[in-house]
Amino acid sequence: MGRGSGMKAIVLMSGGLDSTTVLAYAISKGYEITGLSFDYGQRHKIELESSKKIAEFYGINRNVFKIDLRQIGGSSLTDKIEIEKGKIGREEVPNTYVPARNIIFLSIAGGYADVAHIDDIMIGVNAVDYSGYPDCRPDFISSMERTLRLGLSGSHNIQIIAPLQHMSKSEIIKMGMNLKAPYELTHSCYRGGTKACGKCDSCLLRLKGFMEAGYFDPIEYEEYPEFYNKYLQTKK
Amino acid sequence: MGRGSGMKAIVLMSGGLDSTTVLAYAISKGYEITGLSFDYGQRHKIELESSKKIAEFYGINRNVFKIDLRQIGGSSLTDKIEIEKGKIGREEVPNTYVPARNIIFLSIAGGYADVAHIDDIMIGVNAVDYSGYPDCRPDFISSMERTLRLGLSGSHNIQIIAPLQHMSKSEIIKMGMNLKAPYELTHSCYRGGTKACGKCDSCLLRLKGFMEAGYFDPIEYEEYPEFYNKYLQTKK
Repeated sequence: MGRGSGMKAIVLMSGGLDSTTVLAYAISKGYEITGLSFDYGQRHKIELESSKKIAEFYGINRNVFKIDLRQIGGSSLTDKIEIEKGKIGREEVPNTYVPARNIIFLSIAGGYADVAHIDDIMIGVNAVDYSGYPDCRPDFISSMERTLRLGLSGSHNIQIIAPLQHMSKSEIIKMGMNLKAPYELTHSCYRGGTKACGKCDSCLLRLKGFMEAGYFDPIEYEEYPEFYNKYLQTKK
Repeated sequence: MGRGSGMKAIVLMSGGLDSTTVLAYAISKGYEITGLSFDYGQRHKIELESSKKIAEFYGINRNVFKIDLRQIGGSSLTDKIEIEKGKIGREEVPNTYVPARNIIFLSIAGGYADVAHIDDIMIGVNAVDYSGYPDCRPDFISSMERTLRLGLSGSHNIQIIAPLQHMSKSEIIKMGMNLKAPYELTHSCYRGGTKACGKCDSCLLRLKGFMEAGYFDPIEYEEYPEFYNKYLQTKK
């Protein structure tokens, strides 16, 4: 619950499938929402277009905070490093990890929450992410929440709500489809083209999620991986 | 101890007296230092000039990270709000508090530490600050440290070292004078003029600190407060 009347939340919006599901969830719960997106020097800038369209779809306010994380460097999502494939779900941290990204994003969300007297910050981290990205793990999220409570001037009741935390991609997609989340507006591909590549880890995870959930992905792909082509044929 | 050979640290450099004392301390302990300053839309931009000169004085590398915190708003140090006087040391949070500033700065320092394989981050927060600013309190600092350890990919031994944490301003100045910290290059005034104003909370705290430590402040002031004029006379 926010400190004002009614429930207010800041929802971190990447333009991707997970954060859009969180947004659909928050809307369904009756929250008054301010979206927060980051223009952080990502190569896949098209995701900012997606989050804009999704905010328009729901008619919510959305702030875009500019912070050039390329100043720190060290990630293939911001630097010119070849994107690593096939590392999601392993113990190593993939090189698509942007150093301290969620820490920085949640800190900034905390600043907005403080100024706007909002207690709830929602983020779409989930079980699939946190196998590879340390700043998606539940113990990180709870420590970050404590840090914000201690470090912000007024927001001692601040909560970081991660409703997808223990869900798999297919569970997320089932929930989002039930909530009529506008998945056709989302963008997940790491390569950042107008059409999704269908080859990168993010595309593969997404298509596998739709297949397992028993739905079709409404966005366009340059090409489908073999498993998804087979799935399309079985459903014909 | 850093993970590489020798001790390495990132020192947050505001160009002020406290962070310059931390730097002098780190140098005296033999750390190999990378300075980190923030161009965050502060009205007192002159402090960036100061931190540059201080880095040159010590011959250390220094990164300047640009992040416009005016995007968040809510502080007289970034917005056009009249600077509040006489609130330091009281229970209220002064309006010179920038929402989530230290949380954001330490998160970004964590990103740099991660990329450069440095474990030690040093910051000049101290007992005087944390009476008013929540993100200077010891329990915040230890929670932030835990958050960085959990959220960063490789830096599980990351430490936030705050050597001034329990020191008063006069104790800090005594330490800095012993270490020959280049206080003549520092800038503390909230108003951001070439000469310090001698009137704002930051100037008053600084001059009181020098007086109590038994030293003279080497920087120039537009005018001295009465107590400092008296002090100058007794020392003649």
